[in-house]
Amino acid sequence: MDTYDLSKISTRAPENLSKAATKDETDLLIDRLEELQNMLYAEGKWSLLIVLQGMDASGKDGAVKAVFSAVNPQGVSVKSFKKPTEEELSHDFLWRIHRHTPARGKIQIFNRSHYEDVLVTRVLGLTDDATAQKRFKIINAFENLLQERGTQVLKFYLHISEAEQQERFEERLNNPRKHWKYNPNDLKSAENWPEYRQYYKEVFENCGPDIPWRIIPSDQKWYKEYLIAKTIVETLEGLHMKYPGLPTE
Amino acid sequence: MDTYDLSKISTRAPENLSKAATKDETDLLIDRLEELQNMLYAEGKWSLLIVLQGMDASGKDGAVKAVFSAVNPQGVSVKSFKKPTEEELSHDFLWRIHRHTPARGKIQIFNRSHYEDVLVTRVLGLTDDATAQKRFKIINAFENLLQERGTQVLKFYLHISEAEQQERFEERLNNPRKHWKYNPNDLKSAENWPEYRQYYKEVFENCGPDIPWRIIPSDQKWYKEYLIAKTIVETLEGLHMKYPGLPTE
Repeated sequence: MDTYDLSKISTRAPENLSKAATKDETDLLIDRLEELQNMLYAEGKWSLLIVLQGMDASGKDGAVKAVFSAVNPQGVSVKSFKKPTEEELSHDFLWRIHRHTPARGKIQIFNRSHYEDVLVTRVLGLTDDATAQKRFKIINAFENLLQERGTQVLKFYLHISEAEQQERFEERLNNPRKHWKYNPNDLKSAENWPEYRQYYKEVFENCGPDIPWRIIPSDQKWYKEYLIAKTIVETLEGLHMKYPGLPTE
Repeated sequence: MDTYDLSKISTRAPENLSKAATKDETDLLIDRLEELQNMLYAEGKWSLLIVLQGMDASGKDGAVKAVFSAVNPQGVSVKSFKKPTEEELSHDFLWRIHRHTPARGKIQIFNRSHYEDVLVTRVLGLTDDATAQKRFKIINAFENLLQERGTQVLKFYLHISEAEQQERFEERLNNPRKHWKYNPNDLKSAENWPEYRQYYKEVFENCGPDIPWRIIPSDQKWYKEYLIAKTIVETLEGLHMKYPGLPTE
């Protein structure tokens, strides 16, 4: 089954989709998300964990900015997981992750996540295949623990083409306001695409389908933002939340 | 198999064991533990997690005090898990636990632990059988994660008799220096012994034998201290630790 072969999945919106109409739709979804986050917080029963993964320059930061623009910042936190610190490395790979899982009523966004420990660490040769297999199992157990506790776990892979990535790297080089995002290793990392595709495929196959990965065609930001907003809103609607009544005492 | 039927396991030392000789032995073990903790810290490769469970007044605090008396306090932390706070309750049951697992080179002692969520919560009717079964599985996955990361997990059940517990409660009532430990609910909790025995049995059966429970006859403090010290020392000896050489650069 090649469902998860990224080289065969389009990175673009369907040809006939209207950009203007979709953007209008996204605006409505973002308004609705503001309301739903309020209910989530008021009801205090559920929480939402959003995992964002994707190659460099796939637009993870941008997605957060666009989709959560209207949401009360008190109810949302973003945690970016970078190269582990010495302290983090002195614990198991889920230690630094677990402490940032959302409390009831909260939305937590992971910009990169525990999945880096079965992706970049494999590319770097720090994690072998057998260890990756073990980690898939513990990741599933961990995410199930969260789900059973009322945390909805939404996992997005922001899917861009190699050509689009190159373009964005060049933009970083040429736009002084984006220089801070430029990293001399960026251009080199392109060599690792086939490996990343393989390791992502294994992640999608092993860490689902109970808590499925959503592969988001992300070459066009407007389409990416639309799909992410839509998935989040549908997930929260599915909880049938209610504002609590007046305290009875 | 009745291996784990606590009502059939002695709470006392073997009849012919010399108390004086055992205490001398314990002193040697405690000295050795001081040395081993130094190596653990210096080598920075392994860590040790000690889980202490037992009925009220089974001597968990006393065990920590006696066994770790000689160890450098910088290398050892004790975390007592009490009734969860509101913040802790707004996360999954392992959230408050995971953050206190030991870094490499450290010894962490849990005075009560994640096991309370399949023990006291069952007695109180907060955790049903199906949930307990699920938790056994996630506890095993969690402890395996720690072990694979180099954390030795040692789980002790301090086994006292009901008569001994009663005596210790009365001591708390009659000794002004122990009044602070007295809790009016203590005497009531005796009613729940049969339930606790059943739930502990399920814990021992389901959360082992890879990471086994050690049932420590604890009516006599000197025997309890000896067994705990011995187990810890043997576990650390089994790691074949070495002091690192001089940096080669």
